[in-house]
Amino acid sequence: MLTWRCRTTCGKARTGVLATAHGDVETPVFMPVGTAATVKGVMTGDLQEAGVSMLLGNTYHLMLRPGAGRIRDLGGLRQFMNWPGPVLTDSGGFQIFSLKGLSKVTEEGAVFRSHVDGSQHELTPERSVEIQDCLDSTVTMVLDECTEHPATRERALHSMERSMRWAERCRRAFRPREGYGLFGIVQGGVHDDLRLASARALQSIGFEGYAVGGLAVGEGQEEMFRVLDRVVDHLPADRPRYLMGVGRPDDIIGAVARGIDMFDCVLPSRSGRTGQAFLRHGTLNIRNARHRDDSQPLDPGCRCPACRDHSRAYLHHLFRCGEMLGPVLLSLHNLTYYQDFMADVRKAIEKGTLDRLAWPEQPADQ
Amino acid sequence: MLTWRCRTTCGKARTGVLATAHGDVETPVFMPVGTAATVKGVMTGDLQEAGVSMLLGNTYHLMLRPGAGRIRDLGGLRQFMNWPGPVLTDSGGFQIFSLKGLSKVTEEGAVFRSHVDGSQHELTPERSVEIQDCLDSTVTMVLDECTEHPATRERALHSMERSMRWAERCRRAFRPREGYGLFGIVQGGVHDDLRLASARALQSIGFEGYAVGGLAVGEGQEEMFRVLDRVVDHLPADRPRYLMGVGRPDDIIGAVARGIDMFDCVLPSRSGRTGQAFLRHGTLNIRNARHRDDSQPLDPGCRCPACRDHSRAYLHHLFRCGEMLGPVLLSLHNLTYYQDFMADVRKAIEKGTLDRLAWPEQPADQ
Repeated sequence: MLTWRCRTTCGKARTGVLATAHGDVETPVFMPVGTAATVKGVMTGDLQEAGVSMLLGNTYHLMLRPGAGRIRDLGGLRQFMNWPGPVLTDSGGFQIFSLKGLSKVTEEGAVFRSHVDGSQHELTPERSVEIQDCLDSTVTMVLDECTEHPATRERALHSMERSMRWAERCRRAFRPREGYGLFGIVQGGVHDDLRLASARALQSIGFEGYAVGGLAVGEGQEEMFRVLDRVVDHLPADRPRYLMGVGRPDDIIGAVARGIDMFDCVLPSRSGRTGQAFLRHGTLNIRNARHRDDSQPLDPGCRCPACRDHSRAYLHHLFRCGEMLGPVLLSLHNLTYYQDFMADVRKAIEKGTLDRLAWPEQPADQ
Repeated sequence: MLTWRCRTTCGKARTGVLATAHGDVETPVFMPVGTAATVKGVMTGDLQEAGVSMLLGNTYHLMLRPGAGRIRDLGGLRQFMNWPGPVLTDSGGFQIFSLKGLSKVTEEGAVFRSHVDGSQHELTPERSVEIQDCLDSTVTMVLDECTEHPATRERALHSMERSMRWAERCRRAFRPREGYGLFGIVQGGVHDDLRLASARALQSIGFEGYAVGGLAVGEGQEEMFRVLDRVVDHLPADRPRYLMGVGRPDDIIGAVARGIDMFDCVLPSRSGRTGQAFLRHGTLNIRNARHRDDSQPLDPGCRCPACRDHSRAYLHHLFRCGEMLGPVLLSLHNLTYYQDFMADVRKAIEKGTLDRLAWPEQPADQ
C-alpha cells in the first residue's frame, strides 16, 4: 500500500511525501489531467521538465478508447503513454453521471451509452476498480454517485449513503499491492452533518487516502472553503487528502490552508489551449492585440520553453494564425506555472508564511 | 555573400558545405517548411534535435501575418521564431499566382488580395527583396512568374523572359551582406531550349545560388528528371543548386544524382499531421486498425521521440481520438526521418554508392 508521511505543518496546512510504487511525490501536489492518455499537445518529457510528478487519467475516456483490456495488454496506462511517475485515475463516475439521458443508475451501478459510438457499457463499483487495475493506476478512486448541485438534503443523504455502500464494494474489489492505494471520497453536498457521516463511514472502511468530492460544481469558493473547514478535521491526519477537480491558484491556496494535499484540474492545459496564460500577478489573454508588438516574454521569470525562447508577439502571432504550436507552448507555460506555484506553496508552508501567499483574481492584462 | 564549397562528388552528385552568416549547412540538405514562422506543432529545439540545419519560410504568409515590418522590428524571422540556423525564404510569388481570381500580374509585378482579410497588396521584384530583407533571410529568392503547367511554348517563353527581367531587378534591389545570398530561379517549363536560355540569362546576372523552379507541378517524376538532366550541366559548378518544392525521398535521390544540393517540401510535416509516417521501407498510415494493438515502435531504428518513447498502438490511439500530440509526434518522426535520410544520401555520395540507394513507392503497411 502507499503511504504518506508528513514533513511540516503550518496551521492545518502540511507538506509531506507520498511514497508510491512509481516514485515519491512532494505534497501539496497538483496533478495535470491526461484525459485520453495524453496531457493535450505535450510530450511526457516536457511534462517532467515542467516539474510534474504525478498525472491524472480519466477512466471513462480510457475504457472507451483504447479500452481497458488493450491498455492492460500494453503494460498499463503509464507504459502506454510513457509516463514514468505515478498516476491517479478517477472512477469514471463523474463523466457518466454527466451524460444526461445516456445513463441509468441503480444500486448495482450505472449503465450508459458511449459518447463515441453509442455502444452500451456498465460501470459498477467492482468494474471500476477492475478497469483501474487494468490501467495499473497507482491511486485508484472509488466509484461514487456524483450528487447534482444544488440537491435537497434528502437527495444528498440517499446519494451519499449509496456512495458509501459503493465505497465498501470498491474496497473489497481492490487488489492490494505495495505502493498502490485506494482512495475513498467524502460526499454529502453542502450539508455538514452528511459530510461528517460520510467521513466517518469511509474511515470505518479504511482507505489509503481520502478525497473530498462534489465540490467545485457551482457552489462557489466561499461555500467550498466552508465545507473544507468542517470536513478536513474529521479525516485521519496520517493519510493524504485530495480535493477533486480544483482549481484556480487561489482555490488551491485556500484549500491547502484547510489541510488539502492533492489537486487536479484541467484549467492550466485547457486555458492554455485558448490563449489564457497564468502569471504570478493574474491571467493574461495572449490573443489580445496589445501583445502584437511586444518583444518581452510572457513572464521573464519563468523557465518554460514559451518564456525562455519566445516573445509575447510570437505567441500572439501563433494564436492569431491558428498555429498548433500556440496551444502547445501556452499549455506548457501554464503547467510549468502551476508546478512552480505548488513549489512556492510548499516552501511557504515550510517557512510558516502561507497566509502571506495570495493570487489576484484580476487579469494581468486588463 | 554566402559561399558553397564542394567536398566530394559521385557522378553529378556532390556533397558540400554552404557557409552562411547563420552557420554552416551540409549539403545535400532538406529544409522543412515553416510557413507562418513555425514548422507546424514542433518546437525549434526539437527541430534541432531532429538534425534540421536550415528552414524555409513563406514570404506570402509572413507579409500578411504578422507583417514584414513587425518581424523586422522583432529582430527578423530567425529571432522571431527562435531559430538559430539559416533560413531561406521564397519570394511570395508561388502563393500569389495560386490565388486564382485574386491576383493580377503586370510587367511591374503582382497586385493581389489577402486570403486572410481581403486587403490589397502589391508584390514587385523590389518589394519581395525588401520584405525578405525585413525577414533577415539568409537566402533570398528572386520573384519569378510561376508558369502554369502545362503551358504552350509561347506562354512559357514570355513568362520565362519576364522572370529573367524580374531576376535582374531583384539583383539590383538586393543589399549584399557577408554570409547572405540571393538565388536566381531557372524557368522555362518542360522546354529544354527555354530552360537553357534561362540558365544562361541568370548566370550573366550572377547569383550566389541557382534554383530550378516550375517543377513538381504535375509534370511527373520522369519529366522532372529529364529537365534536370538537361539543365544542371548549364549551372555553375561552384554554386549551390536548389530544386524548389521537392519532394518524396525517391524524388530527392534522383535529383541529387542529377546534381541538386538543396530541397524543401511540406511533405514530412503535412503527411505527419494526417497520420502518414515515412519509414525506410515505405510509408505507413498509423490510423490503420492493424496498428491498434502493436506494442512495437513505428521504426525500432529511429531516434525520434515518437519511436523512442511510444508504441504504434499509442500513436494510433492519439490519431483515433483526434489528440494534438499525434500530429506533433508524427511530424517530428517524419522530420527526423528526412534528416537521417539526407545524412544517408550524403554518406552514399562520399562512399560512391548513391546508385544503390533506393526508396520504395509501395506503402509499408499494405
